Amino acid sequence: NEAQKPPPVMHYYMNNVTQSRTPAENEEKVLILTPLARFYQEYWDNLVKIQYPHDLISLAFIIPKTKEGNAAYAALQTQVTKLQKGPNKKRFASVTILRQDTESPLQSQNEAERHKIENQKSRRAAMAKARNSLLFTTLGPTTSWVFWLDADIVEFPPTIIQDLAAYDADIIAPNCYQRYYDDKKKAMDIRPYDFNNWIDSPTAKELAAKMGKDDILLEGYAEMPTYRSLMAMMYDPAADPGTKVKLDGVGGAALLVKADVHRDGAMFPAFSFYHLIETEGFAKMAHRLNRESYGLPNYLVYHYNE
Amino acid sequence: NEAQKPPPVMHYYMNNVTQSRTPAENEEKVLILTPLARFYQEYWDNLVKIQYPHDLISLAFIIPKTKEGNAAYAALQTQVTKLQKGPNKKRFASVTILRQDTESPLQSQNEAERHKIENQKSRRAAMAKARNSLLFTTLGPTTSWVFWLDADIVEFPPTIIQDLAAYDADIIAPNCYQRYYDDKKKAMDIRPYDFNNWIDSPTAKELAAKMGKDDILLEGYAEMPTYRSLMAMMYDPAADPGTKVKLDGVGGAALLVKADVHRDGAMFPAFSFYHLIETEGFAKMAHRLNRESYGLPNYLVYHYNE
Ligand SMILES: Nc1nc2c(ncn2[C@@H]2O[C@H](COP(=O)(O)OP(=O)(O)O)[C@@H](O)[C@H]2O)c(=O)[nH]1
Ligand SMILES: Nc1nc2c(ncn2[C@@H]2O[C@H](COP(=O)(O)OP(=O)(O)O)[C@@H](O)[C@H]2O)c(=O)[nH]1
Ligand SMILES: [Mn+2]
Ligand SMILES: [Mn+2]
Repeated sequence: NEAQKPPPVMHYYMNNVTQSRTPAENEEKVLILTPLARFYQEYWDNLVKIQYPHDLISLAFIIPKTKEGNAAYAALQTQVTKLQKGPNKKRFASVTILRQDTESPLQSQNEAERHKIENQKSRRAAMAKARNSLLFTTLGPTTSWVFWLDADIVEFPPTIIQDLAAYDADIIAPNCYQRYYDDKKKAMDIRPYDFNNWIDSPTAKELAAKMGKDDILLEGYAEMPTYRSLMAMMYDPAADPGTKVKLDGVGGAALLVKADVHRDGAMFPAFSFYHLIETEGFAKMAHRLNRESYGLPNYLVYHYNE
Repeated sequence: NEAQKPPPVMHYYMNNVTQSRTPAENEEKVLILTPLARFYQEYWDNLVKIQYPHDLISLAFIIPKTKEGNAAYAALQTQVTKLQKGPNKKRFASVTILRQDTESPLQSQNEAERHKIENQKSRRAAMAKARNSLLFTTLGPTTSWVFWLDADIVEFPPTIIQDLAAYDADIIAPNCYQRYYDDKKKAMDIRPYDFNNWIDSPTAKELAAKMGKDDILLEGYAEMPTYRSLMAMMYDPAADPGTKVKLDGVGGAALLVKADVHRDGAMFPAFSFYHLIETEGFAKMAHRLNRESYGLPNYLVYHYNE
């Protein structure tokens, strides 16, 4: 079959891959990455409502090889098929779905179980590997931005990509809250959910200095008070909605990253890295690469309430 | 244009991406990654002679934004075009060429200059970032193996991929030597070239323990004797050609890596990682991910002699 078309030779000029304050105007490509163990319709509905030009957005998912993962896969598949056959304007540039090859270390994934401190290290290590697999295999030479978005983030503004990119930060996280029913007030209210966005403390540094090389610090556990300043606790509806703080640790619930940060090598350590792991270790690694993380205490996204 | 074809939805089952002792038989895809500052015809000629099925091989290059890089780019381009238009059997599955966006920290790239100890840290950091950019943007969901091959490796066996894969190691390096003219013997001879393949020593560990957090250990410098066991010094033509040794540090001149090692997050640190950097830091990081490195002291590849 000597007549076959020559295989592709692709040339890319990396300095054309800009990461500007006005990414849509500059036609910058965004890769939205979601590790997905459960499918929530509200997540999907908000994803589809994102106002950034969909033809500049690629989606990629990584789904665990569990029964729950199978159900999530089927639900995602249905929605993707519907969307990509629908009106052009809504379609995304491409959709990649990866099925993991490793068993999840914790089959039961209810909130109480996965947040137990003794389960955290293996769980966070598994999450780190899943995020790295997704990142290393889907980041392309023309990607300008990576937007990490967990599958259980069920409410966020449709302008979130532009809003976050406007800060021109290497790494930037909104504040992740949760809606709940307050039994005393007999009304819905909101409360902090993600404690991984923080500013380091002397106590945490002292704790780390005394730890064994494989031990990790965790945030949000009464057994291990770190006295870090948590962005989750800085939300002030009366303050400037645009306030930005510098962070030393970040969460992955919603996180906009300049693709060059990843290309320089910043990934999610699945091992103790300065006694940090996964997204918190990522912020530290980026810092070692002279890339800084920021957070927006008054810009809220909402986590599903089980 | 509502009639446009729906954009691609791609599904990948990661457990189908095997990394076996018989990769060609199992149709495992190989990605050959080359950071390329100078083009050597002998490198290219040997690359084309690789006997692994070419339709399973993708090539990717990253080229610096220097005058030298421009010349290398033009030379590569000519060869790629010729090859990919030629007989099907010789064509590779795809070729990706990335032009870096950063200036090289050292414009002069002759051997004496780039091996100066005071130039090593910034040079190795720049190399690490180049390797990461290349890796993160070209590794795909179906890649089984990554074969790192420097552009100045001008002689290696055509069966090198199969030969190395047969060891079933996460990471495996042949021994990198150099041909030279021995003035005393009045004849060609060979000598060790790459000192980055080593087994750690107590002296190196003590040196590291006393270093500042940003300092790095370097190998092959009289100013800094580490007493590590260098694979370069283990070559024995009289011994078993298949001998394998476990390594703690590796070089990138020629290095076969199971793609899952990278997917788990192992990359080339551009910062001091346990006082190691770039390919040596990579071996350490892989080790932290429970992936081990091996070397073949009696399997030789040859570096260009400037
Ligand atoms: N691929 C993959 N995704 C997972 C796994 N476990 C959780 N996830 C997803 O990863 C994200 C974060 O996990 P989650 O359990 O919600 O973390 P938490 O909210 O911090 O407790 C969510 O989008 C989950 O659906 C897993 O084992 N594999
Ligand atoms: N992309 C890129 N490649 C480089 C750069 N400097 C060297 N190289 C290539 O990277 C590989 C290793 O570099 P080299 O200078 O040969 O290292 P040495 O042999 O260890 O001194 C070779 O293939 C070079 O052509 C650079 O700044 N950018
Ligand atoms: Mn969650
Ligand atoms: Mn070289």
